[in-house]
Amino acid sequence: MQLKIALLGGDGIGPEVLTESVKCLQAVAETFDHSFTYSKALIGAAAMKKFRTPLPDQTLEIALEADALLFGTIGTLQYDNNPSSPIRPEQGLLRLRKELGLYANIRPVKMFPEIIKNSPLDRALVSGTDFEIYRELTGGIYYGEKKLSDDGTVATDICTYSEKEISRIAHKAFKAAKKRRKKLTLVDKANVLETSRLWRRVVKTLSESYPEVTLECLYIDNAAVQLLLNPTHFDIILTDNMFGDMLSDQGSVIIGSQGLLPSASIGEKHCMFEPVHGSYPKAEGKNKANPVASILSTALLLGHFGMKEESRAVIAAVRKSFKKKIVTPDILGSSKYGTDYVGDFIADHINDID
Amino acid sequence: MQLKIALLGGDGIGPEVLTESVKCLQAVAETFDHSFTYSKALIGAAAMKKFRTPLPDQTLEIALEADALLFGTIGTLQYDNNPSSPIRPEQGLLRLRKELGLYANIRPVKMFPEIIKNSPLDRALVSGTDFEIYRELTGGIYYGEKKLSDDGTVATDICTYSEKEISRIAHKAFKAAKKRRKKLTLVDKANVLETSRLWRRVVKTLSESYPEVTLECLYIDNAAVQLLLNPTHFDIILTDNMFGDMLSDQGSVIIGSQGLLPSASIGEKHCMFEPVHGSYPKAEGKNKANPVASILSTALLLGHFGMKEESRAVIAAVRKSFKKKIVTPDILGSSKYGTDYVGDFIADHINDID
Ligand SMILES: [Mg+2]
Ligand SMILES: [Mg+2]
Repeated sequence: MQLKIALLGGDGIGPEVLTESVKCLQAVAETFDHSFTYSKALIGAAAMKKFRTPLPDQTLEIALEADALLFGTIGTLQYDNNPSSPIRPEQGLLRLRKELGLYANIRPVKMFPEIIKNSPLDRALVSGTDFEIYRELTGGIYYGEKKLSDDGTVATDICTYSEKEISRIAHKAFKAAKKRRKKLTLVDKANVLETSRLWRRVVKTLSESYPEVTLECLYIDNAAVQLLLNPTHFDIILTDNMFGDMLSDQGSVIIGSQGLLPSASIGEKHCMFEPVHGSYPKAEGKNKANPVASILSTALLLGHFGMKEESRAVIAAVRKSFKKKIVTPDILGSSKYGTDYVGDFIADHINDID
Repeated sequence: MQLKIALLGGDGIGPEVLTESVKCLQAVAETFDHSFTYSKALIGAAAMKKFRTPLPDQTLEIALEADALLFGTIGTLQYDNNPSSPIRPEQGLLRLRKELGLYANIRPVKMFPEIIKNSPLDRALVSGTDFEIYRELTGGIYYGEKKLSDDGTVATDICTYSEKEISRIAHKAFKAAKKRRKKLTLVDKANVLETSRLWRRVVKTLSESYPEVTLECLYIDNAAVQLLLNPTHFDIILTDNMFGDMLSDQGSVIIGSQGLLPSASIGEKHCMFEPVHGSYPKAEGKNKANPVASILSTALLLGHFGMKEESRAVIAAVRKSFKKKIVTPDILGSSKYGTDYVGDFIADHINDID
């Protein structure tokens, strides 16, 4: 297969972990005889430095022309400490998602038995955890109109959802549930929010078209608790943009490190793959960031294009790195291995499938 | 001291746990020679059944005349399954908070060493956990205008905060931090939300008046993770209405049961005390709900009115119940003790301070 892949490293540790992902994709290309070509582009604070905008036209062009995007991370301490800056790195990512129509963000949370002792939670509780969060990605309060009164004393954010925005991702979530354990959990705050009530109504109506899937509805505060106390209860979780942001970071706690969770963002025409974790500015350039979340994102990319065996080979190589303890210090405190060494190990083991 | 206390049991297990709290308040009154008088009133689904409104006028009147309110819980399965109902039990509580001006909701999260093994988290991580969440309670998206388009396909929730709403609770939080470990963590989503940026600006400006308090700012998704991985890091957490709702339910996971967390809601003139947990409709009438969160809420009430020794006596009696394993089954699966037995035990031990 031929694929044009855009590489948007972004800020912080993004470019570093992306380098390791490209090594893995190249190992896949060689082992399985595919041809992947890459174009790099700037986004976020890195783009603002050079182009004064977090999403330059040439970056958007490269993104629109690619078959798939690999994304790093976004945000720097400079802007985190100054959230009132009128132009911000995150705006680049938010606009990119919107321009590419990437409305469905899929975040698989799967416990790897090799590193189960890394979870701060009871082993018996988390063993067998295997769920996917379907987070709506281009609507809700993150995209709604923002206002600040002229005197700067009153601020407003607007959260809006339409039936169409809800049903298109809900269909994707129901279809995914059908292929898995046939359970879908809608997470909302329908006892308080009007948008949540619309989510519930739309999803309940849609569920009639998926009679084999069991639908349950949970309030977000309860879901956040149940996710920790009973993670194996969940199969597919469907939720809005903000609730999904919060829940998926909790997913990383369950499996023991923020450096492990990959994600896929899917629209009608485009697709993008990125780690769930943030830009971790303190680790930038120190060769200690965990590349696994980004590498597992390439496994999602390969799976998305039907390359199932290739996807499995990447995951198998990652698990081999766990088994051999070739991991970054977030996984094993005493580990001396850096980002690049772990990436090399995983890439090197993609071709030696047992 | 003389106190007029309004008792609003609400729905589900609310009235049951409140009964145990009144036992404890009476034990305090007798032991320490105070005079507490009580007036009961209906709220929530219980009020809707009789008065067709979740906050009847007579309830509001009783609440306004009382020195303090003890609140139970709100919500029933009937309405949880039908969140589109135009009148809902929760509206009674939301309006009550607004009418009484209860803008500061304070939720202490403290690990009791006697039951530390109940935490699903690593013992070493959670040992010594002792923080308080200051949640803004009468603003933000829970109170903003709600709209549904005429054709029912587009829903909107509006989140608004003013400088005044932020600064009055921030002052309370800074003052609390001053008396504790002098650390305040503001939790927001300032990289995306305009209201969060206003929070950050107002709180940063205010912090100059509290030079002895160290201020840190965390994004909500990161805070939810840090709360689990490093709960002893936190002293005072200050946050908005919705983020506070989510974070405090997580606090209950840390300390091992949803049946343990009390809360105080404070305004300029009124104050209300209630468990953090929900109405747990499945346990209603089964004498198995944990009364401790409600009983610890009376300790907050007593402390609020300056009755420090009385407050400590209630907490000591609760800890004695843990030590003697006189607890409900959420704390010890094999326990045969019911809500009333545990409440009696705690009330009976309020007068025998060691
Ligand atoms: Mg996040
Ligand atoms: Mg809650």
